[in-house]
Amino acid sequence: MSAPAVPEDAPDRPRASHSAGAAAMNPSALRIDAARLMHRLDALAQVGAIDGGGCCRLALTDADRQGRDLVVAWMYELGLEVTVDAIGNVCGVQAGRRADAAPVMTGSHIDTVRTGGRYDGNYGVLAGLEVLQTLRETGVRTEHPLAVGVFTNEEGARFAPDMLGSLVYAGGMPLDEALDVRAIDGARLGDELQRIGYAGTAVPGALRPHAFVELHIEQGPVLDTEGATIGAVQDLQGISWQSLTITGQSNHAGTTPMHLRHDAGYAAAAVATFVRELTRRIGPPQVATVGRIELHPNLINVIAARATLTVDLRHTDEAALQRAEAEVADFLRRLAQDEGVTIESRALARFEPVRFDEAVVQRIEDVARRLGHAPRRMTSGAGHDAQMLARVCPAAMIFVPSVRGISHNPAEHTAPEHLVAGADVLLHTMLELAGAVS
Amino acid sequence: MSAPAVPEDAPDRPRASHSAGAAAMNPSALRIDAARLMHRLDALAQVGAIDGGGCCRLALTDADRQGRDLVVAWMYELGLEVTVDAIGNVCGVQAGRRADAAPVMTGSHIDTVRTGGRYDGNYGVLAGLEVLQTLRETGVRTEHPLAVGVFTNEEGARFAPDMLGSLVYAGGMPLDEALDVRAIDGARLGDELQRIGYAGTAVPGALRPHAFVELHIEQGPVLDTEGATIGAVQDLQGISWQSLTITGQSNHAGTTPMHLRHDAGYAAAAVATFVRELTRRIGPPQVATVGRIELHPNLINVIAARATLTVDLRHTDEAALQRAEAEVADFLRRLAQDEGVTIESRALARFEPVRFDEAVVQRIEDVARRLGHAPRRMTSGAGHDAQMLARVCPAAMIFVPSVRGISHNPAEHTAPEHLVAGADVLLHTMLELAGAVS
Repeated sequence: MSAPAVPEDAPDRPRASHSAGAAAMNPSALRIDAARLMHRLDALAQVGAIDGGGCCRLALTDADRQGRDLVVAWMYELGLEVTVDAIGNVCGVQAGRRADAAPVMTGSHIDTVRTGGRYDGNYGVLAGLEVLQTLRETGVRTEHPLAVGVFTNEEGARFAPDMLGSLVYAGGMPLDEALDVRAIDGARLGDELQRIGYAGTAVPGALRPHAFVELHIEQGPVLDTEGATIGAVQDLQGISWQSLTITGQSNHAGTTPMHLRHDAGYAAAAVATFVRELTRRIGPPQVATVGRIELHPNLINVIAARATLTVDLRHTDEAALQRAEAEVADFLRRLAQDEGVTIESRALARFEPVRFDEAVVQRIEDVARRLGHAPRRMTSGAGHDAQMLARVCPAAMIFVPSVRGISHNPAEHTAPEHLVAGADVLLHTMLELAGAVS
Repeated sequence: MSAPAVPEDAPDRPRASHSAGAAAMNPSALRIDAARLMHRLDALAQVGAIDGGGCCRLALTDADRQGRDLVVAWMYELGLEVTVDAIGNVCGVQAGRRADAAPVMTGSHIDTVRTGGRYDGNYGVLAGLEVLQTLRETGVRTEHPLAVGVFTNEEGARFAPDMLGSLVYAGGMPLDEALDVRAIDGARLGDELQRIGYAGTAVPGALRPHAFVELHIEQGPVLDTEGATIGAVQDLQGISWQSLTITGQSNHAGTTPMHLRHDAGYAAAAVATFVRELTRRIGPPQVATVGRIELHPNLINVIAARATLTVDLRHTDEAALQRAEAEVADFLRRLAQDEGVTIESRALARFEPVRFDEAVVQRIEDVARRLGHAPRRMTSGAGHDAQMLARVCPAAMIFVPSVRGISHNPAEHTAPEHLVAGADVLLHTMLELAGAVS
C-alpha cells in the first residue's frame, strides 16, 4: 500500500487550523485539508481493492458493508448525527445554528461497478466529510445544518435500477418495491440490507434538504480536453436506450447479387451511420452511440441473417430527445422496407432530462471564479444521485476532470490538485447555501 | 431412410433403355435415368448424414473414405477404368473409339463442409456417373473417352486452401507442398490420404482432358429467383478478402461529445455502408459484403475501443476488382483520419477472376435450348474445381437452381426435376464434345 499522492501546497495557500477549539477564521480564506482528503480516498480504495488501483464494491455485498462501516466510523469521529433509512441510505448531519432548518446536503455513493475506479462516488462522499470537518475544526458555524448522504446502489451493477437509493429517497419508487428488487445473483435487496446491517429505521426522504450539491468526477473528457478544472453542471441528459433485432436472409456473399440481398449486417451498419449523421444534423448536445453489434452467423462469406444492436440517444431537452427518437424510428421503417428485413425495437431504458437549479448552478460558478477557476458550464452525460434529489430540493453538481474521460475502469484518474480544487468549491458553495454565521 | 423424391416422368419423355446390350438409339433422344440419379444422391447422402438431411464429410476423414468407397464401387460397377492420383483425386474413365484421345471430363467433389447439404459437389460427380451409365446402356459410343473426376478437398473446411486437389491437378501447387498441408485438427494431408487408403500412384494431371464441364448447384439465388432451370456459367468472380482491425478510444456514451469520439464501432459501420454504396456506384457484377463485425467491449453505453470486421469484394474483372480494392483503401485512410482511429488491414485471400471457354459455354447454351430450356448466362460467385481445370483445358460449368440460394446448410435443396434437367444438359454437352459415333 503506497502513500497517497498529495499535491504540494503552494506557500501562500490558506490552511485550515486542525485544532477543534481554534477561534473562527475568516470564512472566505478557508480551504479543505488536501492530505486528509487524499488519505481518506486511499483508505476507502483499499476496501474491495482490485488490480490496477480500482475497486469492486458491488452494492450491499460484504465489501460494500466494509466501506460503509469505514465511512460511518469517520462520521462518528466527526461528531455527526448518523441515521440510516429503510433503504440503507446513510446520512451524517452536523447541526446548524437554526436547529429546525433544513440541511444543506452533499453526498454521493460508495458502491462501485465490478471494475470500478476509486473516485466515482467515493470522492463526493469523502469530500463532503472533509468539508464538514474543515468547518468544524475552524469553528465556522452555519445557519442551516450540513449533511452528507451516502446513497444505496447508485451504480445499478448488482440491482436494477441504478440510483435506487436516491430514487426511493425522492419518492420515485415505493419502499416495498425497492426492497423486493432482486440482484443479478438472485438475492433480495431487503434481505441483503438486513444481512449487512444497513436496514435502518428512518423514513427515506424524511430529511428534506434545503439544497443539494453533489461533487463528482466528470467521467467524460470535456474538462480534461479543455484544460478546465471546475464544471458547473446545469443539467443532465435524458437517455433513450433501445435494442434492435434485425432479421434478414443468410446467403452466399459471392453468389447473391446486391439487389437480392436482405443483409442484416448492412442494416445494422446503416443504423450506426445514420445515428452519427443525425448528431451532425441536430448538433450538440445530441449524442448517439451504437456500442453493441452482433451478427449471425458472423462469417466472412455469408450475408448476415440476423443482427442485434443497441442505440443510445441522449439530449438535455425532452422534446429534442423525442424528435431524435422519431427520426430513428422513421429511418428504421424505411430501412426495413428498402433492405427487405424486419426490425424489432425494444426499449431498454428511458429517462427524461433533468434541469438543475439555476441559482445553485450560478452559486457554484461564482464560488469557482472567486477561487480562481474559470468554471465550465456543462451537462452531465451520466446519471447521478443529484438528479433524484433535484425532485425534492434545489440541486446542482460540481464536476472535476477525469483524465481522458476514463471511468468505470481501474484506470479512472483525477489529479490530486483537481480533487482538492473541487472540494474547496464544494466547501464554499455549501457555506454560502447554509449561511455562514458571522 | 425415406425413399428419394423422384419426378414423375412426362408420358412423352424419351427413356433410356437400361439393358446394356440394347441397340444404339438416336442420341438426341437420350435422357438420363432420373430415379437412378436420385437413388445415388440419396445413398451417398446417408454417408455422414446429419440432422436436417445434410452431410458432414470433411475431407479425408473416415466419412470421406466411406463416401469415396461408395463412388468407386459404382465406378467399377460401370466398368470404368479407375485411377487414384498422388493427391487422392479419383478418376473413372470410359473408353472412347479413339483410345489415344484425351477424355471429355466432368466431375466435382464429394467432401462437404461441417454442416453441408447433399447436393454441393456430390451432384456433379453422380450426374457424371449417370451420364456415362446412360451412354453405356444405350450403346452410344463416343470418339473421345469420357471421364468422371472426384477431386480432393474442394471445400477447404478441413485443409486450406480449398480446391486443393484440382489445384494440384492443374499444376498450381507442388505435390509435396500439398501433402504437407496441415488440417485444422493438426493432421498432415499426406498421412490422412495414406490412412484412408487414397494415396494413389498416378501423377496428378497426367490425364489432360480434351474439355471439362462441371455440373453444380448454383449455391446462389439467381436461377431460383428468375425461374430459370439451366445456368451456362461463363466466368467466375475474383475474390478479395481482408480483415480489418480498427482501434479507437473507449469512452462513456453519455459524457463524450461527438467531436471528441474515436469510435471504432462507428468506423466499422462506416466501412460496411461504404462498400454497399460502392456496389451501387460500380453496379453489377460487383458485390461486397461485411459479414463479420465484432466490437469491444460491446456494451450499450460504451464507445467501442476496438472493432474487427471482414470485407469480401468480388468481381469478374481483375482490373475492376483492383479498382474496388483501391477505393476501399482510400476510404479507410480518410476514415482513419476523420475519426482519429487506426485501421490495420490484413489480406485473407485473393483470387483472380476466371473466364471459362466461350465455345464450351455456347455449347452448353445450345444443348440447353435444344432440350427446351432458356439458359441463363451467368457468373459463379463461388469457387469450383472447374476454375482449376480451366488452366489446362477448355472448361465451363452448368448450374441448376438452389432453392432460395441456400447452400453449405442441411436445408440446401434443388428440385428433382432441376437435377434431372441439369444432368440431361451435361449428357448432351459431353456427347457433343466427345463426338457421338453415328
